[in-house]
Amino acid sequence: MSKKVTDVNTLGEFGLIDHLTKDFQRRNTTTKVGIGDDAAVLMYGDAPIVVSTDLLVEGIHFDLIYSPLKHLGYKAIVVNLSDIYAMNARPHQVTVSIAISSKYSVEALEQLYAGIKEACRIYGVDLVGGDTTSSPRGMTISVTAIGTTQEEKITYRSGAQKGDILCVSGNLGGAYLGLQILEREKQLYLDNPGIQPDLEEQKYVLERQLKPEARKDMIDHFDKAQLVPTAMIDVSDGLASDLMHICKASGVGAYIEETKIPLNQEAQLLALKFQLDPVTTALNGGEDYELLFTIKEADLEKIRLMPSTYIIGEITDAKDGVTLHTNGGNIHPLKAQGWNHFKQEE
Amino acid sequence: MSKKVTDVNTLGEFGLIDHLTKDFQRRNTTTKVGIGDDAAVLMYGDAPIVVSTDLLVEGIHFDLIYSPLKHLGYKAIVVNLSDIYAMNARPHQVTVSIAISSKYSVEALEQLYAGIKEACRIYGVDLVGGDTTSSPRGMTISVTAIGTTQEEKITYRSGAQKGDILCVSGNLGGAYLGLQILEREKQLYLDNPGIQPDLEEQKYVLERQLKPEARKDMIDHFDKAQLVPTAMIDVSDGLASDLMHICKASGVGAYIEETKIPLNQEAQLLALKFQLDPVTTALNGGEDYELLFTIKEADLEKIRLMPSTYIIGEITDAKDGVTLHTNGGNIHPLKAQGWNHFKQEE
Repeated sequence: MSKKVTDVNTLGEFGLIDHLTKDFQRRNTTTKVGIGDDAAVLMYGDAPIVVSTDLLVEGIHFDLIYSPLKHLGYKAIVVNLSDIYAMNARPHQVTVSIAISSKYSVEALEQLYAGIKEACRIYGVDLVGGDTTSSPRGMTISVTAIGTTQEEKITYRSGAQKGDILCVSGNLGGAYLGLQILEREKQLYLDNPGIQPDLEEQKYVLERQLKPEARKDMIDHFDKAQLVPTAMIDVSDGLASDLMHICKASGVGAYIEETKIPLNQEAQLLALKFQLDPVTTALNGGEDYELLFTIKEADLEKIRLMPSTYIIGEITDAKDGVTLHTNGGNIHPLKAQGWNHFKQEE
Repeated sequence: MSKKVTDVNTLGEFGLIDHLTKDFQRRNTTTKVGIGDDAAVLMYGDAPIVVSTDLLVEGIHFDLIYSPLKHLGYKAIVVNLSDIYAMNARPHQVTVSIAISSKYSVEALEQLYAGIKEACRIYGVDLVGGDTTSSPRGMTISVTAIGTTQEEKITYRSGAQKGDILCVSGNLGGAYLGLQILEREKQLYLDNPGIQPDLEEQKYVLERQLKPEARKDMIDHFDKAQLVPTAMIDVSDGLASDLMHICKASGVGAYIEETKIPLNQEAQLLALKFQLDPVTTALNGGEDYELLFTIKEADLEKIRLMPSTYIIGEITDAKDGVTLHTNGGNIHPLKAQGWNHFKQEE
């Protein structure tokens, strides 16, 4: 009898985490919410502590051929802070661990840390710890972000209810198109190292990919409007996939109005140039780091004048599934086709 | 003029972190202590939050040829918890992120998580988050541990004063000798895959290396004796190197009495077999995860009956340096020769 060997690809990233951690018990009263949201929530006192962590791996999450190290450091912080904002909380601290091969010089690492420092400055967080070690090859960056808010403001993925209004904080699809440009230019460069790429025209999408921002400002807008969303997530995997996370956690369905998805004009033109449907890049592209959230219908007035708030759909019964209402009047079921790192390789 | 390129090896691990983070400002009042101790200390309310993080890289920190995945998962948690205990605090939560190549099966990961789960059970901590991603090659594990204690009990590296008594919680050098055995057996195996190693006789040192324990019990002993050490660190880099961390942070010197360093008998015999001085393996071996701490002379009575407490030396003036008083009556200055991962490779 041979030993059972199951390919990790069969479960997918989220299925794999669920599978591996399903039997873990909770032992401490300080643990309020564990695995399954953008961040864990701990209660050590009156103020909840919100904790999120991410691992960025060279060759999977970034390519140093086209990622300037300073931007990479900046992005590594920002994508983690985005998870804290997605809980309607504010980050205060980060830890950063890096594993690097000895091919990196001190000057290269200074660039990486210049980006980390810039992100800490802009988002007002403190670097409080980390680990620096060597790696046989490649670079790995692990960031943990820690923040807080009032307990009643914490917004989980699981609070959406039928009739809630579905909103997003900004344009989607740009980061994915930026990646397409960079991959194309990389190929051109590898084929002919003499060519210097002209990337000026694609500034918007490249910045979305290489130096994204987290929507810190939305938390201020929510506070000012005295609005607490019913559910929230950041768009890291793609609109379709992230909406499904909300629907699964909340036990609801949802529809998106195709014509309401906010798209950047430059990105739209570029999508067409790549023979891609701009809406598909928004649904499945990922890495936009906008906030996707739901609000009660009764709170509609509160978002009427709120900046960066686009109504794109509505929460429905679970049995209605997660669908796209197209421009042409059709209803398409949505599939999660976002980043699945285990399916990308080899 | 050529661009300046400085080899990361020139600074060493700790010098590199200091260099890269020296200009970072602190912005949040919730940040009490940042980089520079075993863990960061955050004050979100009355109870301090203690946070520590580590990155373990295949080929640097572990070798899957001889590290069973279950032990590896266990060790990855334990070494992080050890940092929390080294602050005289108790861990409540961990996050675990892993990057793995697709050569790992679900069953292999189940083994890894079985070890993580076992450590969580034994140390009473909750797994509250993490990230699972693919890697082009090799495995990387990032663990963040979070815990707490009363504010007045937190023990930093920086509190040692002249005249304080230097103690350690147990035998040193075993983990390093375990590694020597494993490296030797690996070489034998690579040269002749038919040979089955007989490791029964080296059980103690192998367990010290492959499945170390963190000294949770010492925190109970301190509590029971109403003792707060003046300074503490866990022995991960080696006694000499870790004592120097205390001395540097506290602005003091110290001496160790060679004859007082606790050694395991099996490990001593084994050291001689490898033609190594047992005391040298204790001073420079690392990975023992015992607690090295200092207490006021006035607290001497409190440790007289305390289990696992070995007095090995005393804190002196900074100008006296860090020295070893040998059996033969000589005084040797100590050097930090512990793990320096940047100097190991290539």
